[in-house]
Amino acid sequence: MVAQHTGPVLGIDPGLNCTGWGLVATQGGQQVLLASGAIRTSSSEDFLARLDQIYQQLREVIRAHQPAVLAVEDVIYAANVRIALKLGHARGAILLAAAHSSLPVASYAPKEIKQAVSGNGNASKEQVQRMVQSILGLRTVPAPNDIADAIAVALCHINRSRFNL
Amino acid sequence: MVAQHTGPVLGIDPGLNCTGWGLVATQGGQQVLLASGAIRTSSSEDFLARLDQIYQQLREVIRAHQPAVLAVEDVIYAANVRIALKLGHARGAILLAAAHSSLPVASYAPKEIKQAVSGNGNASKEQVQRMVQSILGLRTVPAPNDIADAIAVALCHINRSRFNL
Repeated sequence: MVAQHTGPVLGIDPGLNCTGWGLVATQGGQQVLLASGAIRTSSSEDFLARLDQIYQQLREVIRAHQPAVLAVEDVIYAANVRIALKLGHARGAILLAAAHSSLPVASYAPKEIKQAVSGNGNASKEQVQRMVQSILGLRTVPAPNDIADAIAVALCHINRSRFNL
Repeated sequence: MVAQHTGPVLGIDPGLNCTGWGLVATQGGQQVLLASGAIRTSSSEDFLARLDQIYQQLREVIRAHQPAVLAVEDVIYAANVRIALKLGHARGAILLAAAHSSLPVASYAPKEIKQAVSGNGNASKEQVQRMVQSILGLRTVPAPNDIADAIAVALCHINRSRFNL
């Protein structure tokens, strides 16, 4: 895996209300945040329209920033079935946006992401966010949390790619 | 009675392993099954590839048969979170295929479907299947079950459209 040499990594934290994204590259041995953002949809809108907004806006982010790979959490848990169904729809839209942009997808378990970013597979959300801030030399923790979480997945991918070389 | 004059109804029963579909029209006051099938994906394949197969094959079905509307169950239950996540991904791919084909989507609760097809919101799966067979004058119950369930959603949509006039 040579992802860090071939282009930036687009980390994604999927959600129906808010999908965070963060574009991270390695420059001179240092991880750099190139761009980040959040795709928001309104609960007053039709479910199908919201799903397509996530798909279309993510395709636009991919077109604009030309990442080499999309990294996303391998969701294996949700608080309940209803939330899991919604999250599944949103994550499905994200995976299809990647597939239709010919963008490879890498998927990581939550513990792997925490381990890669903070050195501790059981780190708290706050610890992960502080490490994201520290690794990238940011003045503040990226907000909303969805963006920080998306960046953590991108950092995990870079970290794992490096060890796989 | 309008729905049956504007084109056939494509009923869908979403699933990652098998997505059933059935195309139903009303001709001379009678419901007729025009076509049906199942989109199968193999568990030995990549998850992303399976999701895109569902999307692409459903778009092909829509292109080939030109339905007026897609009818799908409004999933509110799954046995557990893991199954709900998978089902959510598959249903997301189906909704996006409809959106990208400019096909309107109608969604019905499981009880509504059972009620519309069998007259009993608490009907068993077998009762619904026998009613599907009877309404359409089929020699056998459509198999696999996913196809019979997809046809039941289409029949529900036709029934509801008629009462809404």
